[in-house]
Amino acid sequence: MATKSLQQSKKPQPTPDAPDELAPAPVEKPRKDVYATAEQMAKRQRSISVSEFFAKNRHLLGFDNPRKALLTTVKEAVDNALDACEEAGILPQVEIAIDALGETHYRVRVTDNGPGIVKKEIPNVFGKLLYGSKFHRLRMSRGQQGIGISAAGMYGLLTTGHPVKITSRTGAKQPSHYYELQIDTKNNKPDIIRERQVEWDREHGTSVEIELEARYQQGRQSVDDYLLQTAIANPHVTLVYKAPDGRVETYAASVPTMPPSPREVKPHPHGVELGILIKMLADSPARTLKQFFTQEFSRVSPRTAEDILTKAGLPDRRPRDVSGQEARTLYNAVAQVKLLAPATDCVVPIGEEKLIAGLKQVVQAGFYAASSRRPAVYRGNPFLIETAIAYGKPQAEESADPASGNETEPPAPETATTDEEEEANELAKLIRFANRVPLLYQQSACAIHKASAGINWRQYGLSQTRGALPTGPLTIVVHMASVWVPFTSESKEAIAGYPEILREIRLGLQECARKLGVHIRAGIRMKTELKKRSYIEKYIPAIGEALRDLLELPEPAVDNVCENLKTVLERSRKM
Amino acid sequence: MATKSLQQSKKPQPTPDAPDELAPAPVEKPRKDVYATAEQMAKRQRSISVSEFFAKNRHLLGFDNPRKALLTTVKEAVDNALDACEEAGILPQVEIAIDALGETHYRVRVTDNGPGIVKKEIPNVFGKLLYGSKFHRLRMSRGQQGIGISAAGMYGLLTTGHPVKITSRTGAKQPSHYYELQIDTKNNKPDIIRERQVEWDREHGTSVEIELEARYQQGRQSVDDYLLQTAIANPHVTLVYKAPDGRVETYAASVPTMPPSPREVKPHPHGVELGILIKMLADSPARTLKQFFTQEFSRVSPRTAEDILTKAGLPDRRPRDVSGQEARTLYNAVAQVKLLAPATDCVVPIGEEKLIAGLKQVVQAGFYAASSRRPAVYRGNPFLIETAIAYGKPQAEESADPASGNETEPPAPETATTDEEEEANELAKLIRFANRVPLLYQQSACAIHKASAGINWRQYGLSQTRGALPTGPLTIVVHMASVWVPFTSESKEAIAGYPEILREIRLGLQECARKLGVHIRAGIRMKTELKKRSYIEKYIPAIGEALRDLLELPEPAVDNVCENLKTVLERSRKM
Repeated sequence: MATKSLQQSKKPQPTPDAPDELAPAPVEKPRKDVYATAEQMAKRQRSISVSEFFAKNRHLLGFDNPRKALLTTVKEAVDNALDACEEAGILPQVEIAIDALGETHYRVRVTDNGPGIVKKEIPNVFGKLLYGSKFHRLRMSRGQQGIGISAAGMYGLLTTGHPVKITSRTGAKQPSHYYELQIDTKNNKPDIIRERQVEWDREHGTSVEIELEARYQQGRQSVDDYLLQTAIANPHVTLVYKAPDGRVETYAASVPTMPPSPREVKPHPHGVELGILIKMLADSPARTLKQFFTQEFSRVSPRTAEDILTKAGLPDRRPRDVSGQEARTLYNAVAQVKLLAPATDCVVPIGEEKLIAGLKQVVQAGFYAASSRRPAVYRGNPFLIETAIAYGKPQAEESADPASGNETEPPAPETATTDEEEEANELAKLIRFANRVPLLYQQSACAIHKASAGINWRQYGLSQTRGALPTGPLTIVVHMASVWVPFTSESKEAIAGYPEILREIRLGLQECARKLGVHIRAGIRMKTELKKRSYIEKYIPAIGEALRDLLELPEPAVDNVCENLKTVLERSRKM
Repeated sequence: MATKSLQQSKKPQPTPDAPDELAPAPVEKPRKDVYATAEQMAKRQRSISVSEFFAKNRHLLGFDNPRKALLTTVKEAVDNALDACEEAGILPQVEIAIDALGETHYRVRVTDNGPGIVKKEIPNVFGKLLYGSKFHRLRMSRGQQGIGISAAGMYGLLTTGHPVKITSRTGAKQPSHYYELQIDTKNNKPDIIRERQVEWDREHGTSVEIELEARYQQGRQSVDDYLLQTAIANPHVTLVYKAPDGRVETYAASVPTMPPSPREVKPHPHGVELGILIKMLADSPARTLKQFFTQEFSRVSPRTAEDILTKAGLPDRRPRDVSGQEARTLYNAVAQVKLLAPATDCVVPIGEEKLIAGLKQVVQAGFYAASSRRPAVYRGNPFLIETAIAYGKPQAEESADPASGNETEPPAPETATTDEEEEANELAKLIRFANRVPLLYQQSACAIHKASAGINWRQYGLSQTRGALPTGPLTIVVHMASVWVPFTSESKEAIAGYPEILREIRLGLQECARKLGVHIRAGIRMKTELKKRSYIEKYIPAIGEALRDLLELPEPAVDNVCENLKTVLERSRKM
């Protein structure tokens, strides 16, 4: 980045982001407001290619800064690899290698043992935004938009000028194909720089290599963090990670079998909007409306289809001949018809036990609970919520409770708080998954955060500022599985807050929280009791001394009075 | 919406979002995992039109739910109206009319006195996503992406089946044109349903009418809220608002002159990435590199251009003949060259006085402060931050201070908190503007929130959970003005957290907070003193009674002892 290079140069000089150290400003011409007519404005109207749009808005895709760019690139490549393997029924083995080529110049290579990609699809898959196999289907998968990996390639090109390099092979009897590609942003099309057949020691699989401006740093929101969390939510996956510092970490599969393969579903009639219905009618190859309803939707039997037509008072006909007004009548009829809820075997949970087992790998706690909810539906899309929590220190070491800690020793506003108070003052940690993919950024924009912060945790014995997460040694895990996860942006970092989704998360967390409340309360009561007593004990000696001086009482009488005072005061406190 | 209609029907029946009340599930066929080959997967690969993409992801555009859809529709139409008026140098007068046509069916009509839109551009402006005049320029404006108003039309079509209706006229001697349009989502192109010349009583202007599924509700995040805040940040604008309940509210312009017209700027060389430079080189009509640098960028004089070539060690030539390797050399040379920071008269502030005047319309407080920062730069884009705060109740009524309120009477964890404590426990209110547009949603995803919550407000005398906003009677206002606001999503609700932006917001707020700290601290000291005294006074009578019983003291002696105890205890507390 220009800014970066600038800072490396030695002489002090003006930089764009240090406005206070500008070179002397030139004499600006006197300001004159310039206005435009409708005709002048019309000349400036232009189409914007989707690649241009995302190149300028690359933060929408998760490329806000070099560190995040590294994570996003790895994430998109790994998500694709896992999806491909699972769709082909292959237990995934994925290698991730990151090499530092310069201070902010890295190479990412992700290689999988998946089914490979057929030759003619390679350029579009890696060199065109909004292209893919997952967008037009309703099936639980990690990728869904046809943007991610091409966007990573585009970012690499924008920041280093280097093309994406792909090797892929679809079987032992097939040749391996090698491509160098770059995206033509003005037209959103792949430019093939180089292509050839190569020798490759794998029978099938895909390898993608991207050079990009990046920054590697361990810790929260790092590639390491992402891979660890991926391993936790995907115990059937083997990951081999070669970090830029030379470390090689292997997360071996802890389960030798694939999770159930999620089914593809057709849209549920109750989740389809009028405009979509009109479009489906116009596009359908069906010859009758009855066929249309039974073939294009789930949960519509021939009898239900007849029922819809009867309710609408319409004769059967070719779907494409239905007028707009008639479509509206059909739409209303659909809404009145009794239908089964969408099939829910299209969403596959991780499972309570595996969630807790995973959580134990991240945090050692004194208390764990998990809940795997039954499937539910938003906007016609089946989804399922799983939650888990971990609380406190393991066993006896458990430290001062945050709830009661706040009670008797509040920090004076002017004084600095101690380390321990700071810890009790820390917000709970959230770990989020969508279709088994860890979400590491934009936590506070996420439905999971919103639902978590919306719960009244105080009623379970935790402390909490209204509208914020609770504070204390708490870790919260939430997984959403769905045929279509409604992300708040193309970078797929946060889940949109549809009411049905918020509700399910809340119910799941409350289930865990109730168990936690029972656990906490016993501890609190004991501590509160102890604190109250110590509080009284703190003041009694001062009073004793005062009485001795004021009333000139002898020592034994003072002791006696103090003892009695204690009893009286404790009684008065308890009232 | 289907769900809605379902809930209206009388008989209990299964609904997609009530999975617990399903009709009995049919016997599912035994589950069998189905896997795909690379060839089968290839057949599913398809292009996705940008309209299809956004129709499915309409929450990205601000159409998550009916209430927000109403706001977003009004917002996009009003933002466009204001931009057009200002670009044409016309003091904006905008009428907003919302009519309820059914319980969740509304009509929005926004009419302006702007320059109008020339006939042939009308269909694209309202019926095609990613089309507009603002994307390819660097100029401070409300709209910037060419998505908003077409997306509102698309949402209206999807939910009601009705087209968008536009009337526009570019001058007294021109005819008025009327269009009914709908977007062809599969191809992202306008379908013209109807078009004709009409009589219109305006000399120039545009009116747009959209029917949509919506919900109207006053309060936070409402259309009313948006219009009020718009009036505050745009004192030169007149808004006439006809609400669905028949109310007519007029926000008359309080300033009779336009704000300075923001200048269009060319990109600054230090904000351009390598990939962009390569693309600009290939596309430039310039015949020499020297011309290229002086014409396509700001702040590059002929001498600087020569300097770049010398540093790169390259002879001058046609830009399009520059190779990739040479482009990289040029890019590095640019980074080493001393340049003026970008011109900053392209960003126009609201101004400290106007900000505080506006703030006073929203909240009556005991203390106000504002700060208008000097322009700065992120990724080559000039921007400017303005901040203001309001604190406490007006004058003497000021209630219990949150900081000290927490100190002596902390709520026991088991007991319910009182109203007053709840209030002190409320998070500060944030009011956010980007290029004078109020941002009402996704607060916690916004750089403004991140920077505000990142400040240690405790050092200024407020209470705060780490990582959250401070609590108490505080309102924070932040305005970002820029030639390109980096929104976190297409719905333009939150600003992305570029480090330079976060820094400027932090500095602005700290400036306000320092003034606030001085104001608060005096108040706190006095109150703490009073509280301590009342605390002691609360216990003394209990002790007095205890002493009377224990030592059988006469009343006057008890009074005497109590008085003396008070003195002693206050002294001991102060130690």
